[in-house]
Amino acid sequence: MANDKKLVEQITSMDVDFAQWYTDVVKKAELADYSGVKGCMVIRPYGYAIWENIQHDLDARFKLLGHENVYMPMFIPESLLQKEKDHVEGFAPECAVVTIGGQNQLAERLIVRPTSETLFCEHYKNIIHSYRDLPKLYNQWCNVVRWEKTTRPFLRTSEFLWQEGHTMHETEEEAREETMRMLRCYEDFYRETLAIPAVVGRKTEKEKFAGAKETYTIEPMMHNGVALQGGTSHYFGDGFARAFDITYTDRENKIQYPHQTSWGVSTRMIGAIIMTHGDASGLILPPGVAPIQVVIVPIAQHKEGVLDVAGKLRDTLSARFRVKLDDSDNSAGWKFSQYEMKGVPVRLEIGPRDIESNSCVLVSRVTGEKTVVSLDNIAEEVEAALARVHDELYERAQKNLEAKTHDAHSYEEFLDIAENHPGFTRAMWCGDPACEDKLKDVTGGVKSRCIPFHEDHIGDTCVCCGKEAKHMVVWGRQY
Amino acid sequence: MANDKKLVEQITSMDVDFAQWYTDVVKKAELADYSGVKGCMVIRPYGYAIWENIQHDLDARFKLLGHENVYMPMFIPESLLQKEKDHVEGFAPECAVVTIGGQNQLAERLIVRPTSETLFCEHYKNIIHSYRDLPKLYNQWCNVVRWEKTTRPFLRTSEFLWQEGHTMHETEEEAREETMRMLRCYEDFYRETLAIPAVVGRKTEKEKFAGAKETYTIEPMMHNGVALQGGTSHYFGDGFARAFDITYTDRENKIQYPHQTSWGVSTRMIGAIIMTHGDASGLILPPGVAPIQVVIVPIAQHKEGVLDVAGKLRDTLSARFRVKLDDSDNSAGWKFSQYEMKGVPVRLEIGPRDIESNSCVLVSRVTGEKTVVSLDNIAEEVEAALARVHDELYERAQKNLEAKTHDAHSYEEFLDIAENHPGFTRAMWCGDPACEDKLKDVTGGVKSRCIPFHEDHIGDTCVCCGKEAKHMVVWGRQY
Repeated sequence: MANDKKLVEQITSMDVDFAQWYTDVVKKAELADYSGVKGCMVIRPYGYAIWENIQHDLDARFKLLGHENVYMPMFIPESLLQKEKDHVEGFAPECAVVTIGGQNQLAERLIVRPTSETLFCEHYKNIIHSYRDLPKLYNQWCNVVRWEKTTRPFLRTSEFLWQEGHTMHETEEEAREETMRMLRCYEDFYRETLAIPAVVGRKTEKEKFAGAKETYTIEPMMHNGVALQGGTSHYFGDGFARAFDITYTDRENKIQYPHQTSWGVSTRMIGAIIMTHGDASGLILPPGVAPIQVVIVPIAQHKEGVLDVAGKLRDTLSARFRVKLDDSDNSAGWKFSQYEMKGVPVRLEIGPRDIESNSCVLVSRVTGEKTVVSLDNIAEEVEAALARVHDELYERAQKNLEAKTHDAHSYEEFLDIAENHPGFTRAMWCGDPACEDKLKDVTGGVKSRCIPFHEDHIGDTCVCCGKEAKHMVVWGRQY
Repeated sequence: MANDKKLVEQITSMDVDFAQWYTDVVKKAELADYSGVKGCMVIRPYGYAIWENIQHDLDARFKLLGHENVYMPMFIPESLLQKEKDHVEGFAPECAVVTIGGQNQLAERLIVRPTSETLFCEHYKNIIHSYRDLPKLYNQWCNVVRWEKTTRPFLRTSEFLWQEGHTMHETEEEAREETMRMLRCYEDFYRETLAIPAVVGRKTEKEKFAGAKETYTIEPMMHNGVALQGGTSHYFGDGFARAFDITYTDRENKIQYPHQTSWGVSTRMIGAIIMTHGDASGLILPPGVAPIQVVIVPIAQHKEGVLDVAGKLRDTLSARFRVKLDDSDNSAGWKFSQYEMKGVPVRLEIGPRDIESNSCVLVSRVTGEKTVVSLDNIAEEVEAALARVHDELYERAQKNLEAKTHDAHSYEEFLDIAENHPGFTRAMWCGDPACEDKLKDVTGGVKSRCIPFHEDHIGDTCVCCGKEAKHMVVWGRQY
């Protein structure tokens, strides 16, 4: 078990240094590597396989809701980006700019897409003419670039992978419904697939997306109480349509502007998985996205029959699960800690004594609990164990979220919580951005996460200025 | 049928202007649209769905062969691209260059990846240390940019989508095997999924990939006799490994350089599909990648029961095929020509009389042949019809390739074929690049496609210089 200990010792303790723990897990679980390109990462096979599972699941959800995938150019002519005033102001500071192409200075500079509203609008102008052309429900899986000063793998990188939905509708009502539908789609995905609970709600004016009328957000809480903006869904009204002169002839033969939405989630979700579920032994992956759902570790594998039975076990389970049999010559102890580090939800141990009794040992990555299970109905046992892992992860994260959410009824209480209780703060707010600015300044970074859909009335006055409160806001520090 | 005629008339005849026919099909079948970004296209839902089917099929083939997907940064620092001399010389003229990031002039210019050998090498240097770390069988699905002067949708665009495999091996032998394995993988995919035959072989020195020791290629012929480089697989030797100082400790504890390959195919395959299989009525899609494999067109759909039965038919077939029921209020004639234009391989027509006789009419997109088939075993009928479409497409393309391949035994014959017989020319060659240059110059563009694996000995002397011949080469104009 020497190797085992050594491997585990290489991870910094979460309690000592959460940031270092995160970096250690990313590196030791072989999710990502640094590259020579400032702010850009290499997503390694194990990390990319998680992303493929995420894509596969989300893409099916999008298509069930009628969305179609497209691909837009990665470059945006500068003049195109400038068409919507708020939008360009929001993104100009973080753009990467191509100025040379084919060894010539370009007549017009090209922006590497930070997001693609402008490109979709240019195309929509070409293809939307009549109400018969609506709705358009397009989505794109691609890479985008936002120049970042300080970066961290998955959480904040200059280039990242994401999906961006861009839809056009006849009416405001339809577009607003779409905005909410896709927020709920993300919420379901976080709960059902990632086993991550979250606060959902509307962003304040100050925190809205550049160019949006409304921004809705899903805000999970990481293990250390810090928030992560997990996904957003925007209602644009007809602002972009007007800026890009996209019109259609309606059912009464009148010219109208269509109503627009966009919504997106990114590889940053992999950061959320790590920081929501991980523990002292490394990563814990929700079964829905785990590249290996079940690892089989043979015990005394040199003994006759062990690898045979282990191989048959793998074949049986492979029909329903993503399974790996590790028959390498590393010690069983090394394998245990290796797949714990990699967050494999369920481990099966099988050795001569297990084979004699037609059973194996099933170990949960969440609880570490060992159960002897019969080989006769092993697929059902594994299925149930994976479901338990999912539920336990969700419940544990939900408890963490609840335990680290505090109500502030006064300015002093707000400051005390910000100082001493990492997590979410619920507090009443007058609606004035000046109060948001002040609370952020005095706390060194506590921002409004959102106005949650379920606003408990926990006071009458703004915790900052004392004026009449308009909303209950959930506040917190963010990644 | 007025609509029908009108729609068909909108496509230019292949015989009058093949290039315009191609452009018409791309536009009318809604595969792609032009964008405001020079040389970049919008891939529309129908075109992107073809790409998704291609990806799905190829990705499964790669994974069966043990490959893993990864994601590398899209930017390459200029100094990194320059590490391998031949490589940078090949790509420097077509680079897009980022010089500004976050509103600051960058200290080092970043190249938007034209291909990712250098990034993979940088990463491999970090993770390859011992023979135990080999082989590394990585693949990446991504966008790349090569600045092009004249562009055409799918065939040649400044940005395109592709996959690039990059593998590292202990020995030259293993790496050479991998190079051939992946060429064969592409050949199988072209034949089994795209129904496209091709000449396969080795590129001459002059036509090799920048930095490769050997380049192998798959060269299908388009309907008009012009070649399209359909996919390439490269053996690099240890050239990049030396340039990037990638070493490993071998089984005898000696330091060695690993041997490398790369291989790729791109969205240009969609261009190959269009130009190999299309006809006067538009696109014809091989069933393996068709977004709609079967379209159901109800006849007299206002009559009682028709849409019910058509709906049930769709539900029955959807379990096994990609099916669309078009119950819109367009005329049946319009629908016929619309889905012919879109290249749907099989059409089912079902009306009151068909329902009475428990049958429907099955129409093949390739032959136009109509067959009355029973509804009782409709899934088997459709399956067989799709298989026939695939085989007919392949055979037709194979016949075209054979009919448009000519042997040249002399310089004069070579010029005559180049002038009067569009297609492939088989001719003996001495091995001197000067002869390749001369033949290209005098014919205005006929280049060596490859030295095919099956070299028929059709002469003793080079058709160009008359010296002793070393190889039989297949020559042709290319897209």
